[in-house]
Amino acid sequence: MANDKAISHAQSIAEDVGAKLRMQDAAVQLLGITLDSIGPGSARLVMKVRADMINGAGICHGGLITTLADSAFAFACNSYNKLTLAAGISVDFITPAHQADVLTATASEVSRGARSGVYDVTVTNQRGDIVAVLRGRCHQVRGRTAV
Amino acid sequence: MANDKAISHAQSIAEDVGAKLRMQDAAVQLLGITLDSIGPGSARLVMKVRADMINGAGICHGGLITTLADSAFAFACNSYNKLTLAAGISVDFITPAHQADVLTATASEVSRGARSGVYDVTVTNQRGDIVAVLRGRCHQVRGRTAV
Amino acid sequence: MANDKAISHAQSIAEDVGAKLRMQDAAVQLLGITLDSIGPGSARLVMKVRADMINGAGICHGGLITTLADSAFAFACNSYNKLTLAAGISVDFITPAHQADVLTATASEVSRGARSGVYDVTVTNQRGDIVAVLRGRCHQVRGRTAV
Amino acid sequence: MANDKAISHAQSIAEDVGAKLRMQDAAVQLLGITLDSIGPGSARLVMKVRADMINGAGICHGGLITTLADSAFAFACNSYNKLTLAAGISVDFITPAHQADVLTATASEVSRGARSGVYDVTVTNQRGDIVAVLRGRCHQVRGRTAV
Repeated sequence: MANDKAISHAQSIAEDVGAKLRMQDAAVQLLGITLDSIGPGSARLVMKVRADMINGAGICHGGLITTLADSAFAFACNSYNKLTLAAGISVDFITPAHQADVLTATASEVSRGARSGVYDVTVTNQRGDIVAVLRGRCHQVRGRTAV
Repeated sequence: MANDKAISHAQSIAEDVGAKLRMQDAAVQLLGITLDSIGPGSARLVMKVRADMINGAGICHGGLITTLADSAFAFACNSYNKLTLAAGISVDFITPAHQADVLTATASEVSRGARSGVYDVTVTNQRGDIVAVLRGRCHQVRGRTAV
Repeated sequence: MANDKAISHAQSIAEDVGAKLRMQDAAVQLLGITLDSIGPGSARLVMKVRADMINGAGICHGGLITTLADSAFAFACNSYNKLTLAAGISVDFITPAHQADVLTATASEVSRGARSGVYDVTVTNQRGDIVAVLRGRCHQVRGRTAV
Repeated sequence: MANDKAISHAQSIAEDVGAKLRMQDAAVQLLGITLDSIGPGSARLVMKVRADMINGAGICHGGLITTLADSAFAFACNSYNKLTLAAGISVDFITPAHQADVLTATASEVSRGARSGVYDVTVTNQRGDIVAVLRGRCHQVRGRTAV
């Protein structure tokens, strides 16, 4: 039961961080990204590809797909309410995304050490195809909360 | 002289691609990214960090810095007017960017083979500090022009 | 039943590729890497950290951990017996490995398209700690078998 | 003149680290890697591709090319004699290397902060072709020297 309480407490912290980050993050709002779910070390965000997200090749700009994935990464690694910043990311683009596609970015924790962590994000479209995968490395800023 | 002509022709193709891509790329326009210069295998793009680009930690969203860098990569690898798509990118974030910072992304060619290429992009701020570095791998789509 | 046969056929091809690659790959032999299992799109390889794999900081050289992981990636993406080469990899080092540690690299398929694929490899030690994760992108060479 | 002395002192530290690391690094010796030159934030290492470095596809194993590049990265980021460990690397393979090729890995500093740094390594063959490029991120271990 003590363990159930700890799990429920961690979940409640994560949800609080998620709600506040969503409100504070202007870039996430610019792209209309919504928070689907968040938990300790995980997050799921959704973005609908708008006309103003299309690149010169007629598909969704890879940088904006990355912004969605990177946001899911940020929500997941800040879910413990310790301020954590991305140090680096690598992204593989697998299937192009088109206007009106609904993209879901699901972030999960690969590892979390004293100060640094590694997270994986998979971006899928409304048919379940993998659009892109992101792997991110982050570092915790000592003594500061995320929200 | 024949060589001078070839160089001048390649430069003229690159400039034409740059001007058209800039007009066709809605995402680049959404972020107010401008084209500073372009040549065969290279491009320089500029973005001013706006209030709506700030993330929950109070700094420019890493995904939008990536979008600037990825755009410079796209302009550089499409500068020969052969349609070329990003396959993957890795980004290292070095110095945070703040509201009103003016970021310049300079892309150059590391290698260009029959169908795939590798490009490096450095993003600096108005003081010359390195904000981020991106390395991208791209693939040419056979038989299609970029613009 | 027809499907069972197809699965069993793919498995048999993968095992044949694995056995032959293991014999043909001198680098894998140099490091004493053994093949634990292989299937269509997956492979598991094992390496014991020897004294001659230690770097100047007294831990297993990251390049050799990468060689183990990259080998698992190569076995997995060649398991269909179509010659496939690594185009790029990214590796995150999580826990150091020490002399006499037994490292297991497990590769699985993230995506596989007409010619290119993305694979994930997790390297763990004998206690189950994650030592490193590798993500690789590969390209198939047309018209050539792996073994 | 004071500045000249500081530069000369940093160079002398780097050379001392290089010589000692070369002797202490068993993995570097296993692959016959030699130290060509080292300075503050930079290093150049050389490896001749031996028969026992060839993979199942008949070319030099990408993991061993990575080991050479990662070693150059390690020598460069430890050249100030503060113990520094690789956190992550990304590698793009550009031209295959063959038996008897002589590979040179040249590492240079992209950025160096209070505790973390980013380095670039280019691996070329004896004809000057780029074989691979590596970008590495490293972290300094507080209070410990490299040699």
